[in-house]
Amino acid sequence: MDFDVIKPLLKEDQKSKIVLLVMDGLGGLPMTEGGKTELESAVKPNMDALAAKSVLGAHHPLPFGLTPGSGAAHLGLFGFDPVKYEIGRGVLSALGVDFDLQKGDVAARGNFCTVDSEGVITDRRAGRIPTEVGEKLCQLLMEKINIPGVEVILQVEKEYRFVFVLRGEGLSGEVSDTDPQAVGKKAHIAKAAVPQAEKTAEFIREFVRQGNKILAAEHPANSFVLRGFAQLPKWPTFGEIWGVNPVAIAMYPMYRGVAKVVGMTVLEAAASMDEEITMLEQNWDKYDFFFVHIKKTDSYGEDGNFDAKVHIIEEVDALLPRILALDPDVLIITGDHSTPAKLKAHSWHPVPTMLYSKTCLPDGLTTYGERACAKGSLGSRFEATDLMPYALAHALRLEKFGA
Amino acid sequence: MDFDVIKPLLKEDQKSKIVLLVMDGLGGLPMTEGGKTELESAVKPNMDALAAKSVLGAHHPLPFGLTPGSGAAHLGLFGFDPVKYEIGRGVLSALGVDFDLQKGDVAARGNFCTVDSEGVITDRRAGRIPTEVGEKLCQLLMEKINIPGVEVILQVEKEYRFVFVLRGEGLSGEVSDTDPQAVGKKAHIAKAAVPQAEKTAEFIREFVRQGNKILAAEHPANSFVLRGFAQLPKWPTFGEIWGVNPVAIAMYPMYRGVAKVVGMTVLEAAASMDEEITMLEQNWDKYDFFFVHIKKTDSYGEDGNFDAKVHIIEEVDALLPRILALDPDVLIITGDHSTPAKLKAHSWHPVPTMLYSKTCLPDGLTTYGERACAKGSLGSRFEATDLMPYALAHALRLEKFGA
Repeated sequence: MDFDVIKPLLKEDQKSKIVLLVMDGLGGLPMTEGGKTELESAVKPNMDALAAKSVLGAHHPLPFGLTPGSGAAHLGLFGFDPVKYEIGRGVLSALGVDFDLQKGDVAARGNFCTVDSEGVITDRRAGRIPTEVGEKLCQLLMEKINIPGVEVILQVEKEYRFVFVLRGEGLSGEVSDTDPQAVGKKAHIAKAAVPQAEKTAEFIREFVRQGNKILAAEHPANSFVLRGFAQLPKWPTFGEIWGVNPVAIAMYPMYRGVAKVVGMTVLEAAASMDEEITMLEQNWDKYDFFFVHIKKTDSYGEDGNFDAKVHIIEEVDALLPRILALDPDVLIITGDHSTPAKLKAHSWHPVPTMLYSKTCLPDGLTTYGERACAKGSLGSRFEATDLMPYALAHALRLEKFGA
Repeated sequence: MDFDVIKPLLKEDQKSKIVLLVMDGLGGLPMTEGGKTELESAVKPNMDALAAKSVLGAHHPLPFGLTPGSGAAHLGLFGFDPVKYEIGRGVLSALGVDFDLQKGDVAARGNFCTVDSEGVITDRRAGRIPTEVGEKLCQLLMEKINIPGVEVILQVEKEYRFVFVLRGEGLSGEVSDTDPQAVGKKAHIAKAAVPQAEKTAEFIREFVRQGNKILAAEHPANSFVLRGFAQLPKWPTFGEIWGVNPVAIAMYPMYRGVAKVVGMTVLEAAASMDEEITMLEQNWDKYDFFFVHIKKTDSYGEDGNFDAKVHIIEEVDALLPRILALDPDVLIITGDHSTPAKLKAHSWHPVPTMLYSKTCLPDGLTTYGERACAKGSLGSRFEATDLMPYALAHALRLEKFGA
């Protein structure tokens, strides 16, 4: 969807409400030939009853066959073509640790590493130092680094991985990586890709100089590399594009972060799925678009734990009546991508999707599952970016195009 | 479809005949949960029998989720992407009153309005004056206006609405609206958007000056505003693009007008659906592409009259044997968009479509309805612009692409 096409069609002052319920990594596969998927195996009477009143289909967030990361997959659901709208690696890392990235900040993903006396990298993960050590080294660097004109903030992600943030005036993310992404090489020198980034590149080179001195005695983590320098993108916001007042409800930093990048209001992290639905109820009158994110379907998929993933789907099903009691005008239940327990990883499989509204013509399918969705009228492989305009249409929020 | 791709593939001197039967606003919704749509409710033995020999599907004329106006929807069926090929508001208004717009004419949509002594608009509809008054004022203006070098033609649409046409040499539609589209404001001054439009803008400003004097004593219609200045677009014609000799049979001005814009021969307005089919029969030997337009399915949909819409579909069904007796090589039965009686308005729902030809592989569906179409091999949401190339293929009018 070209945002310029939809912009003049958005009705103002609408009261209709849309809920986008995302079970992360929802799509699955049978563990054995002829079996059922996680979603097909789950006992979920509420979702099945809703399927009978809904239109079904399966979406793909990227060009067909590609497997999305979490950021890209959510951008697709939000209507931003993930090939065109890319969030820089550094920004994704910052979002993943709930770092409060500000406009103008430059973020990068950092690795502590081991170098020999010549500065050649011998271990890109510094012997997988424990997270506590990584955290201590981040603190050490922040205490000792002194670069006039700019603030350096470091936050450990996990083990040897950390987020690097440069905060100051007139910075740019157009700087090349220092990380050569290989052992046996020295770290690269950070270089400006455009003239306006020269000042930022010099700040980074100074950080590298001072940092290497500070870490010299901290073997195995006696050096570090940085990659994916990036700033928060300057995109139109979700609210502007779709004419809604959106709010995000999610337990994990990454998803609150992506919602923040597209300009949604982001609520505090909930402690449980139950609490997420309570937050939905409590905020029902304040917003008109609700992104509700369920993480554990994906986590158990990644773990290869088929049964636990099934169980999470069943728990979500038990919460569904509370969502329906709010009487949303449009309720979409889908995933951001597939994470079949069988593959223990994100996958490219189209993602089961169900859209309920009072103005939909139900497909007559009576269960919510991958193979039911493949028969639905939304199509067995529609583009994720088509969902938002379709949801707005069903919420009666669009004027007609042309006279 | 890129027209340049199909152009070299068009076979010459073909005799095969294609009928595009459009029931305006055909797609519908059940009035109550679990019910049937208008098309599903209609008793239509002829269409159902034809469905068994056809391929079915549901099209959308615009990016998925958008609701088309009549002009845009028909352009889609004719193979012109309505986002790319837009007909200006003024031209649409002229087409809607059967005005014989010429190449070079500039048309606009006019509103009579009420202004106070300062020229501030106090009523954008001049108290909804009756059509007869609107007509009289159009005549009055045409008699008294005198602008050397250009002819001004006005034709009432309905009540306070009229069509404004400027006829002369070297005119341009690139002029800004005088209509501020709000009360409490003065009319804008028409301005040229490009240098070549300066002469036209001055003609319009002069019309506004003279017109306001002429209407000064005609309270409540003591002024007027104009918007959507436009000329007939310079597009390739339907006949050139698809290699056919097309004719349009329609009762209502708007549809004859859109057909004219794409260069079809347009027959006189028929007085009934029966007469439309008689015109089809009488002209069978003269053309090879026949656009036949049925209006009342849409009208009753807009009225919210479910039963009357059903009845019109049944009447069309009764006429179908006469079309089949002509032995068309390809017969498409579809709508331009959906107009569910339940919504009393055009909608975004995909439009039921059935394509019959001697070379199609029937889907094995035995009824023509929204949910049958959603299961058809054309797909549950194909693009309307795909229809024309597919019809040509089934009419054996295309060479193969590549050696």
